[in-house]
Amino acid sequence: MTADLRVALGDSTLVVLAIPSQYLRGVARRAAGCWPRGGAVLSAAKGLELRTQRRMSQIITEELGGVRVAVLSGPNIASEIAQGHPASSVVASRDPRLAVRFQRLFMTGRLRVYTSRDVVGVELGGALKNPLAIAAGIADGLGFGFNAKAAIMTRGVAEMARLGAAMGANARTFSGLSGLGDLITTCLGGRNRWFGEQIGRGRSMGAILRSTPMVIEGVQTTKAAVALGHQQGVELPIIEQVYAVLFRKRPPRAAFASLMRRAGRSESS
Amino acid sequence: MTADLRVALGDSTLVVLAIPSQYLRGVARRAAGCWPRGGAVLSAAKGLELRTQRRMSQIITEELGGVRVAVLSGPNIASEIAQGHPASSVVASRDPRLAVRFQRLFMTGRLRVYTSRDVVGVELGGALKNPLAIAAGIADGLGFGFNAKAAIMTRGVAEMARLGAAMGANARTFSGLSGLGDLITTCLGGRNRWFGEQIGRGRSMGAILRSTPMVIEGVQTTKAAVALGHQQGVELPIIEQVYAVLFRKRPPRAAFASLMRRAGRSESS
Repeated sequence: MTADLRVALGDSTLVVLAIPSQYLRGVARRAAGCWPRGGAVLSAAKGLELRTQRRMSQIITEELGGVRVAVLSGPNIASEIAQGHPASSVVASRDPRLAVRFQRLFMTGRLRVYTSRDVVGVELGGALKNPLAIAAGIADGLGFGFNAKAAIMTRGVAEMARLGAAMGANARTFSGLSGLGDLITTCLGGRNRWFGEQIGRGRSMGAILRSTPMVIEGVQTTKAAVALGHQQGVELPIIEQVYAVLFRKRPPRAAFASLMRRAGRSESS
Repeated sequence: MTADLRVALGDSTLVVLAIPSQYLRGVARRAAGCWPRGGAVLSAAKGLELRTQRRMSQIITEELGGVRVAVLSGPNIASEIAQGHPASSVVASRDPRLAVRFQRLFMTGRLRVYTSRDVVGVELGGALKNPLAIAAGIADGLGFGFNAKAAIMTRGVAEMARLGAAMGANARTFSGLSGLGDLITTCLGGRNRWFGEQIGRGRSMGAILRSTPMVIEGVQTTKAAVALGHQQGVELPIIEQVYAVLFRKRPPRAAFASLMRRAGRSESS
């Protein structure tokens, strides 16, 4: 255990970077000066850099040059893994051998690790699930039932997939562990769902955020996702309504009514 | 309101058949003799005929000849819809105009109806979600957390999609409202999940079934799904473990251990 980056890195061949998303760039920049030759990275952070909307692996590549990168994501509540409950996760890399190498390192009888080549999709799922979990929480706070929550989660996966596909991801990745899977845990037990529930009950965002020491990642990710949707020309009906509720004073019930009033369409569109 | 089939059918142009899956063939056969000319069907039943493993629309076509058929499925707990909570559903038909016709009839400010052309996929999702909800319930009963439940649901969607694709469905349908969406409501509040939880706690299937007047559809569907998997040569790791627990006295914890011990693989396989 050390706080000295040079000592921590040493001459490692595999480096796990588990650094909160808004601090990753600074640490990666400092690490560039003492990076071990040929050392590959596994990034375990979820989120987007707010200022640039960059994914974590993009930041790593920008700051550490041509380093080989893999990313880890999935429905992984840390305390459950620490208790030895079964869990599963995905390691994605454009270098399939690197993904398999990390898969073998992390796989145990209680943690099942799948590989993927879709770095963009795996990273986006871990970020975009948070605004959707806020939407599911708002439905809970309004007293709606399981039908409404299931609809938000299901159409939310379609919404992530549309934005992801426009950004170069494989749409199917969002039906996997890093998209749907992580969305489910977040909608069952996460703090973003809890935050949405408070909003749905009529509390103000400021009052909720002042009442808890927790960071609600989805608040900022909602802004980033709306910006990405505009850039890519992709409609994000659910996330745009979350944005309107949080930043445009739209009443939650009116936001849901707008979602229900949209023109009828085919499920595949 | 009438119990006379001939009076009920009259000269209707659109007929909704909401008949429990094991009784549909008998009613359809009796209806054939007084079927209104050109009358199209919307089937609202979920499930497979146990003896033949046929889907509901197949039975209707077999018994009513060339009648035009659409099917309705999705995350639709009836009591929530009766209370006016928002919900969404899918109408699938090979005849796109018939699907749109039923969509317009059923769509309100509180029930959002999507169309689909994938009859096979929409029908299979409503049936196969039940064995998967039993698996999720078993995880609950064993005291596992949200990570394990999310993994079962996510890999369960992949499992439904593999079997469905072999049977002519579009794999993507299973990530929609009639697959994933219905699986979510069933895993949040359904009786199949409850049944699985009792199994996970160590109660015997016989004792549980004797203690409730409810029909646990997933018990029989597990048998039908395993038979379909064998016919199609498709591996169904989760449903096969549910089968082993229910019908082969495999302890639930051992069934989960088997799932975790499978060889490492790519998420897309």
